[in-house]
Amino acid sequence: MSEFFDSRWVECPDGVTVAPGDGLPQGFRAAGIACGLKESGAPDLGLLVSDAPDTVSAARFTRSGVLAAPVIVCKNRTRLDAIRVVAANSGNANAATGGRGMDEAARMQGAAAMAAGVPEDQVAVASTGVIGVQLDGRKVVSGMLAVREELRGDGHGAFGEAIRTTDKFAKSARVKVALSGGEVLITAQAKGAGMIQPSFATMLCFVQTDAALDAETADLLLGVCVKRSFDRISVDGQLSTNDTAILMASGSSGVRVATQSPDEAVFGQALDAVLRQLALLIVRDGEGSERVGRVVVRGTDPRDVERSARAVANSPLVKAALHGGDPNWGRIAQAVGLAMADRAPIDLDITIEGVPVCVRGAAVPFDEAALAERVSGTEVEYEVLLPTHGEPATAETEVFFSDLSHEYVTINAEYTT
Amino acid sequence: MSEFFDSRWVECPDGVTVAPGDGLPQGFRAAGIACGLKESGAPDLGLLVSDAPDTVSAARFTRSGVLAAPVIVCKNRTRLDAIRVVAANSGNANAATGGRGMDEAARMQGAAAMAAGVPEDQVAVASTGVIGVQLDGRKVVSGMLAVREELRGDGHGAFGEAIRTTDKFAKSARVKVALSGGEVLITAQAKGAGMIQPSFATMLCFVQTDAALDAETADLLLGVCVKRSFDRISVDGQLSTNDTAILMASGSSGVRVATQSPDEAVFGQALDAVLRQLALLIVRDGEGSERVGRVVVRGTDPRDVERSARAVANSPLVKAALHGGDPNWGRIAQAVGLAMADRAPIDLDITIEGVPVCVRGAAVPFDEAALAERVSGTEVEYEVLLPTHGEPATAETEVFFSDLSHEYVTINAEYTT
Repeated sequence: MSEFFDSRWVECPDGVTVAPGDGLPQGFRAAGIACGLKESGAPDLGLLVSDAPDTVSAARFTRSGVLAAPVIVCKNRTRLDAIRVVAANSGNANAATGGRGMDEAARMQGAAAMAAGVPEDQVAVASTGVIGVQLDGRKVVSGMLAVREELRGDGHGAFGEAIRTTDKFAKSARVKVALSGGEVLITAQAKGAGMIQPSFATMLCFVQTDAALDAETADLLLGVCVKRSFDRISVDGQLSTNDTAILMASGSSGVRVATQSPDEAVFGQALDAVLRQLALLIVRDGEGSERVGRVVVRGTDPRDVERSARAVANSPLVKAALHGGDPNWGRIAQAVGLAMADRAPIDLDITIEGVPVCVRGAAVPFDEAALAERVSGTEVEYEVLLPTHGEPATAETEVFFSDLSHEYVTINAEYTT
Repeated sequence: MSEFFDSRWVECPDGVTVAPGDGLPQGFRAAGIACGLKESGAPDLGLLVSDAPDTVSAARFTRSGVLAAPVIVCKNRTRLDAIRVVAANSGNANAATGGRGMDEAARMQGAAAMAAGVPEDQVAVASTGVIGVQLDGRKVVSGMLAVREELRGDGHGAFGEAIRTTDKFAKSARVKVALSGGEVLITAQAKGAGMIQPSFATMLCFVQTDAALDAETADLLLGVCVKRSFDRISVDGQLSTNDTAILMASGSSGVRVATQSPDEAVFGQALDAVLRQLALLIVRDGEGSERVGRVVVRGTDPRDVERSARAVANSPLVKAALHGGDPNWGRIAQAVGLAMADRAPIDLDITIEGVPVCVRGAAVPFDEAALAERVSGTEVEYEVLLPTHGEPATAETEVFFSDLSHEYVTINAEYTT
């Protein structure tokens, strides 16, 4: 088994091999440098370039009603199916920065286009960091010239470093996928620790492959995989102004992933596993997080199931109990009660780590010491069955969530992030 | 000025005088004892009795889909407009306890009826404490006989003590109200610190008066005042299984509050101020809370306004910033963006303590040191104006919320509450 796929909730699919190292897929170069946005002097500007003119891409963005300038620039000014360059900075979100912020995001796009020698409308920009502070565009522009000089085929790690904010560790993946036409490589760099939740998580994630995909296939696969990964995690129930996920396929391996082929399924499973594992890493790095919970909710109505799962995952009481290693299932009942307000009686079944603790709304005896032992691990699973009134429980969903720790408070009370 | 009305957000109305002491309004007796539900040996059983046969009452309960047994008993088996007895315990919520929990709640009702010599259907029961643990009915029944012996006209404080759980201080009010026919007394005992939020807060509150009210008037006044108090606070965005608010009017003063009279307005304002101040005390006692925030949101659509205010009040990022005394308004923009997902662009105006920090979605310069000083106080006010597109901002709401502190994590991670 690999070190990358280290959660019981993500399996390494057949045909996928974890490949340590910093080499990007064929056709890509990347780099990361410090351009001075972060006071710490840590890397804060990344540039990723595909040298293949026919690179196809797909992108997903935050659903927040308050969009950061780089998100607006991408949505309005970038050919999202033909992105060849990603320019990303950390240390400043360029959000809630008005017209000047829009100008700076456009300037960043222009500078990256110039640095990479690619048309502006094939450049995506992304920012992460503090909201409501103007981005210092001079630093970005001069940084772009510097980072361009660093572009390398093994810049995978350096690019990933440059997009970190409160992340305690870099989140990246590098896997080989065996397809019928040969082997392709997938690399991905993600960031995210706080302000992580719904649709989809508050994060940046950039994925590169040298497989040849149609733009439609890229879009379909990214959409499905984001829904099963970054859309199913929550650190603090918050939705960022800046969430961005971009998949780029250079085609430089010459291995084509044909639509609706077995290869598409294999490639899709690989992408799915990579994004799910990265999503779990984000939860695990949830500011101050020490444990990851997974709540699975089943019922008859998909909306009730979704609402209940979110309520459990976002309940500070449930999260604090997870932190304390406390199998306090009453808080799960309470959270579902909130989600299902005015719908009493909601007689739940609740199971923790396979141990039934509540059946049809009522406490049942269980071995408290044994369960306390089980919930003291790094991953804890909660299952909730909503009342089905005799119907089959055809609706099901999951949310992964972090615990609520002292460090979360320290990080978010004592620093402006 | 009084010590009770100590928030800038609640004024002591004309005709209202804070009256320290433990004397209940005429007609009422109360007591609180330790019956052994709490391991600490602290008081955990309260009994409140009106000796006036014509006592009228009104009640409001949690909207949770998962209702505690005592709430179900009250809703199904109590004449809510003619409650003469309240039996309340702390140390156990009797929630998620199934049929046995229902039996215990009914047994508690029966024991209180017997102890007070009042028909069962005029007895309300309430419980607060841990969820999912069976209530030890023997302790309650034998406790009821003991607490009955302690019933006294000055049992206001003792009854309030008996309903505390993680509350750091007792929350009670005692005010005189000058009406045209003479003076009446209002006393109230509330509890609540965690699992506090929406509609209405997770709390218990019992209010007594010797004014003579029609049942319809009592119901109307309680409904309006709860909407403006316990319904507008949030400690952690959670909704309890047990929330209960009960107003009882013995009429023993002989002073009638006629429907739609000036006296009704005066009495209503007094009740409103008392409940708002008690609600603020609950927020202030929010587990580990050190500061109270008030967010006022204005806009054109009441649903958007409500959703945005809740999102700000419940954002752990906003709450942690409040804790840290950090005027980090970007988190307010982010929270509203979450509330208004898929509605971009939402160009907000944000004002903190009267200082504009964001105008039409963009940061504006402000004196950071001066604002940091202002947000370091015990009460911080945030104002948000949603885009009005030229229409008048006729919709407005407020939510009071606590900060997120280390102690919240300690309380909720290290204890089963």
